[in-house]
Amino acid sequence: MPRTDEPATRVAGAVLQVFMERALARCEVDEPSRNAVARALITASRMGTDSHGLRLLPHYVRAVQGGRINPRPAMRFTRRLPGTGYLYADDGFGHLAGYTAIEHAIAMADEVGIGAVAVGRSSHFGAAGCYALEAARRGYVGLSVCTADALVSLHHGQGPFHGTNPIAFAAPVPDQLPYLLDMATSSIPWNRVQQYAAIDRELPPGVVVDRQGNLTTDASQAVSLLPLGGADFGFKGAGLAGMVEVLSATMTGMLHGFRLLPMSGDDMSTPRGVGHCFLVMRPDAFVERDVFDRGMRDYLKDLRDQPALEGGEVLAPGDREWRCQAHRDAEGIPLDSANVAAYAELAERLSIPAPA
Amino acid sequence: MPRTDEPATRVAGAVLQVFMERALARCEVDEPSRNAVARALITASRMGTDSHGLRLLPHYVRAVQGGRINPRPAMRFTRRLPGTGYLYADDGFGHLAGYTAIEHAIAMADEVGIGAVAVGRSSHFGAAGCYALEAARRGYVGLSVCTADALVSLHHGQGPFHGTNPIAFAAPVPDQLPYLLDMATSSIPWNRVQQYAAIDRELPPGVVVDRQGNLTTDASQAVSLLPLGGADFGFKGAGLAGMVEVLSATMTGMLHGFRLLPMSGDDMSTPRGVGHCFLVMRPDAFVERDVFDRGMRDYLKDLRDQPALEGGEVLAPGDREWRCQAHRDAEGIPLDSANVAAYAELAERLSIPAPA
Repeated sequence: MPRTDEPATRVAGAVLQVFMERALARCEVDEPSRNAVARALITASRMGTDSHGLRLLPHYVRAVQGGRINPRPAMRFTRRLPGTGYLYADDGFGHLAGYTAIEHAIAMADEVGIGAVAVGRSSHFGAAGCYALEAARRGYVGLSVCTADALVSLHHGQGPFHGTNPIAFAAPVPDQLPYLLDMATSSIPWNRVQQYAAIDRELPPGVVVDRQGNLTTDASQAVSLLPLGGADFGFKGAGLAGMVEVLSATMTGMLHGFRLLPMSGDDMSTPRGVGHCFLVMRPDAFVERDVFDRGMRDYLKDLRDQPALEGGEVLAPGDREWRCQAHRDAEGIPLDSANVAAYAELAERLSIPAPA
Repeated sequence: MPRTDEPATRVAGAVLQVFMERALARCEVDEPSRNAVARALITASRMGTDSHGLRLLPHYVRAVQGGRINPRPAMRFTRRLPGTGYLYADDGFGHLAGYTAIEHAIAMADEVGIGAVAVGRSSHFGAAGCYALEAARRGYVGLSVCTADALVSLHHGQGPFHGTNPIAFAAPVPDQLPYLLDMATSSIPWNRVQQYAAIDRELPPGVVVDRQGNLTTDASQAVSLLPLGGADFGFKGAGLAGMVEVLSATMTGMLHGFRLLPMSGDDMSTPRGVGHCFLVMRPDAFVERDVFDRGMRDYLKDLRDQPALEGGEVLAPGDREWRCQAHRDAEGIPLDSANVAAYAELAERLSIPAPA
């Protein structure tokens, strides 16, 4: 993530978490929902996933105050078969839906080895990694996917069709923090385009197209992201985004990304009907646990021992995030001047003390 | 796939299938194994996946005659929990392991909604898509992944570490052929590099590196593929390849790609111990079947209706394959002059009639 601004201040995660919960309480958000939102945002911010961390709180406040998000949802889980179920999220916060679904998936995996939960009538759930990570922290392999509104072109397509449709996969590693892949199926997120446009910085080639569908590196001309793989191999990124659509829109009965109301649109009163899908597996439902553990350790040791290119570094998915988390746990989570202003404004409007 | 050679001849799939089964029978391969190999190779060749189709037969004959592959395996399936199991493939053909595993996964999905099978002590299974496709043909959502020997660099790594580690995902579509994504987690396969080197054609940028780990477009200098996403975003392709390693090497107790004997190495007597992983889901274990069916249809209609760039075409994963299959079913499967020579040589050596 490019640094567009030096941090104006740093605040301890625990302090930010209290602020988030208070702000949401002021919006009549029930306790399970505000706990889940704050937990997911702090998890992302600690890891350095700033696009999906604390900066989203003002957006969520607008969405819940506008009526798009239900502050006191009556979520209902139906276990349709021993290994599968459907969570009706009642237009509540996606973060509560995500943590709830992953608990049900874990419970089913405990019984039958594997569990999958499709979630419908939900909303933005923050970083997909939070839920896969929760599975891995508890010793399971976890997968989490979600559809999103149209921002990404199809391969050879003119305009946006898929969302950035993230895929998050996490696996436990003995005596280490988990393996954690959390990736959009586009090369870059849309907020990167906005950041680059704001400071007139050139984008790398092959990541966005202009109004005519032509490649550009001028962020101010970008109207659509390209799928991972760019102009030559974007059929792969688009195919992965399609897999995410099937799992989290088709298999949940929700609208696919192209038909979804935009997350950042003006309509803050209509629920968007977002779908997610979660999968959890017990490693010892396949091989003995010590075999799995040894395999993870050996694989990651070989990976991290690989010689790096000059000036580069070979990392496993998650390594950068855990390093950032250790740093931020010690030094506090950075807020840039825009975050500070947004949080001060929120504090004033909701009559609660600002965190920084 | 670039055409390096006009087809020397075309042969009906059924004729090729008979030839393949005869050739394998001459190598003492048992009936289930030879059926499975021929079925997978013909499936791939009909769809135009030439890298994983009929061209592999001479390689498989060498591998089974050399002792690397067990011609009469005693595969054993253990259902460890109601939704999960392990298939010990006894160093037999990966194609038989794949079709066997997907049947067990389907049977478990019928009972508990979802089924996953880890396969160990297997061998090359051809195109990953064959097995996901079999699930989709029967009305299920299917996923199939496999590790492979080291040909792909890590992001910022100097040399090969992961295999091309394919991800295949298939879903049923009412009254249409399935949605079928079958992709390597590198941008291109290694045999594309070899083809381009043979005709001195330049590769696209960002797909291979030379001995020093520097980007090159000169196929003759390539020593390693880059992961999908290339020099800038290869951490995503590498992360996906890692997900495949966890599922098909760690969760099967097999060696990860970096430690695997090379598929095309000289040692044709030592079993490689390849691992695969398969997942099958019943759509109606999540939502009503008609909701799923309508969702698939609506999604693919919207997708195919998207305006294309000039000179391009917007396709769903599988569309190109099904078009090729219709053409090849009508006109025969093309053999280039190298295939014709290899098949003639095989026919002579095994004393069976050549197919063309």
